[in-house]
Amino acid sequence: MSVRAVYALTGDVGDAPARAEALAVEQSHEFPPDLAPAKAAPSRAHVVSVEEAGPDLALATVEFPDDLVGDELTQLIVMVFGNCALLPGVRLVDLDVPKALAAAVGGGPALGVEGVRRVLGVPTRPILATALKPVGLPVEDLAALGRAFAEGGIDLIKDDQGLGDQRWAPYAERVPRIAEAIAEGNAASGHAARYLPCFDAPPERVEERLRIAVESGAGGLLVVPGVGGLPLLRWLARNTPDDFVLLAHPALLGSLAVSPTAGIAPDVLYGPLLRLSGADAAIFPSYGGRFSFTPEECRAIADGCARPFAGLAPSLPTPGGGMSPDRVPELVDFYGRDVVLLIGGELHRGGDPRGAAERFRSLAEQHA
Amino acid sequence: MSVRAVYALTGDVGDAPARAEALAVEQSHEFPPDLAPAKAAPSRAHVVSVEEAGPDLALATVEFPDDLVGDELTQLIVMVFGNCALLPGVRLVDLDVPKALAAAVGGGPALGVEGVRRVLGVPTRPILATALKPVGLPVEDLAALGRAFAEGGIDLIKDDQGLGDQRWAPYAERVPRIAEAIAEGNAASGHAARYLPCFDAPPERVEERLRIAVESGAGGLLVVPGVGGLPLLRWLARNTPDDFVLLAHPALLGSLAVSPTAGIAPDVLYGPLLRLSGADAAIFPSYGGRFSFTPEECRAIADGCARPFAGLAPSLPTPGGGMSPDRVPELVDFYGRDVVLLIGGELHRGGDPRGAAERFRSLAEQHA
Repeated sequence: MSVRAVYALTGDVGDAPARAEALAVEQSHEFPPDLAPAKAAPSRAHVVSVEEAGPDLALATVEFPDDLVGDELTQLIVMVFGNCALLPGVRLVDLDVPKALAAAVGGGPALGVEGVRRVLGVPTRPILATALKPVGLPVEDLAALGRAFAEGGIDLIKDDQGLGDQRWAPYAERVPRIAEAIAEGNAASGHAARYLPCFDAPPERVEERLRIAVESGAGGLLVVPGVGGLPLLRWLARNTPDDFVLLAHPALLGSLAVSPTAGIAPDVLYGPLLRLSGADAAIFPSYGGRFSFTPEECRAIADGCARPFAGLAPSLPTPGGGMSPDRVPELVDFYGRDVVLLIGGELHRGGDPRGAAERFRSLAEQHA
Repeated sequence: MSVRAVYALTGDVGDAPARAEALAVEQSHEFPPDLAPAKAAPSRAHVVSVEEAGPDLALATVEFPDDLVGDELTQLIVMVFGNCALLPGVRLVDLDVPKALAAAVGGGPALGVEGVRRVLGVPTRPILATALKPVGLPVEDLAALGRAFAEGGIDLIKDDQGLGDQRWAPYAERVPRIAEAIAEGNAASGHAARYLPCFDAPPERVEERLRIAVESGAGGLLVVPGVGGLPLLRWLARNTPDDFVLLAHPALLGSLAVSPTAGIAPDVLYGPLLRLSGADAAIFPSYGGRFSFTPEECRAIADGCARPFAGLAPSLPTPGGGMSPDRVPELVDFYGRDVVLLIGGELHRGGDPRGAAERFRSLAEQHA
């Protein structure tokens, strides 16, 4: 078995076979085929099939030699969607990676669904998450929120992705204090909430910020791979404590999945690609919120997180982006129990975050 | 002055004012405005203006408090285009960053146009670049190509972005040998070609790969920030030898600029954003090649590289993607002399890469 990628080609289907051939060249040799030296032939990708899928749509399956990856996630990404990211009318819609290759690139969630459930002590019900926000609050206010959410029974309490190292709540002050407050909330309530600081460090601060998170007793990280790169997420999956939950945030990254005729299909991006990169859970904008995915797209994303892929652990779909506790029954019916339900600002409505968290938890337990 | 971003909002212009307000909230507080604590007010972004720009197009200017950046490029990116990357119909079309803030995030090309010209010893004419390819060739073949291009007078000889650490030409063998061959070519011809290895290292190999490049006498790097992250490019700009030329490749990154109604406008992406991230030169797919930008978009990209921005040095637009020597006069007329002309596969036509390079150089000198 080899790496296979399926590309949706939008446009005249009569042109699709030639476009598919050009794509296979672009993503491997990137060299005029008539000039390619014979000894380079083993590194060339090939078109397996081109199928008409609609009046202006064809699906091209391309097979890549495994050796083209050089056992590195970086080059795997370049190979399957480097240059063709520059092309309108070309969308990556499916990806298969052999198990051995996925293992060789060091891919896969360290925890996955089972591991996250184990470290949280939540064997079956939906997992609950919220965000500490808004940016601009001082550390003590964020810590008080963290404590209230831990007391109320939220499992994963993450920093908002907008929390960096701003003067209002610098990382080195914020992370230890919030971790402490959440631990206090856990002690008071008997819950086991985990704190996930926003990890959006420039390369020169990666080690220091990680050390602070670990020493503070954080339980994982909110990672922003669109900014820091998918390879940094993979590195974190291999270089953080065994029980660290890595939650991927779609800031910037999500741009890949916005166009229906270009980029990467949302189910491939939030599923296989983030799993390969080591995400235990992937936040995406759910239908019915502030963003634009359809229920069908959200269903496909959840399937992309769960389905067998490259021998890697499944990840947890994490629908967010304007959710509210009222929607818990509907969201559980839709996504099933292997889900992280992420509710942010709406837990603040009514001015009682602890009470809102308790209600959120109660609804999730009732609908498990 | 503050950070200002202009977003093109596609859709009913009657909705634009409300969408602009929602955008300012999304990119700063990401919190229901009616619930936002008063003490967080200084961290909120604000709409400066919303102007109708067409039947279904409005331009919204949003001003962000400088403190929201926390003096880190990572958070600057999250702030100006993190969550709104998830929204179709929202495109970042202009960006202004105060000089002091750009300096604080460590932004800007270390060399820029003047610096690259100085280290290359090319004061006025267009700069010439080519790629070593295709992947699959053994080290000696790539080295022979490198020598031929150096003898022929190419200034920047880069690895193809498809060259990672594959078995055909592993990085640790390839980079020293090619650097040596290019030095031999320079010694024979009197030219001063620089070798730019493809730098697409996973985080754990960044330091080792950089050391190999420096010790080999490479003259810069081909960086792939779409994969490794824009912050890694910035780090390289601050942590490589003073004369290292950093050339940014658009693999994956280019997806941001593919949709006309979402993502980041090509001139902002390849210009200001890559300059902030430290690129001395930015490869983009030129009009008239294998990709799809119009001449107008290419002109805007060149302007984005050159225009005053945040007190940063200008960068070199590097049109590529299916160029040929025949087009040199046209390209120089179009882009001007402050340009890197990148011709890859077509220099192999005729089977005499050295001769093709000489012709390429001669054409560039005639049209300087």
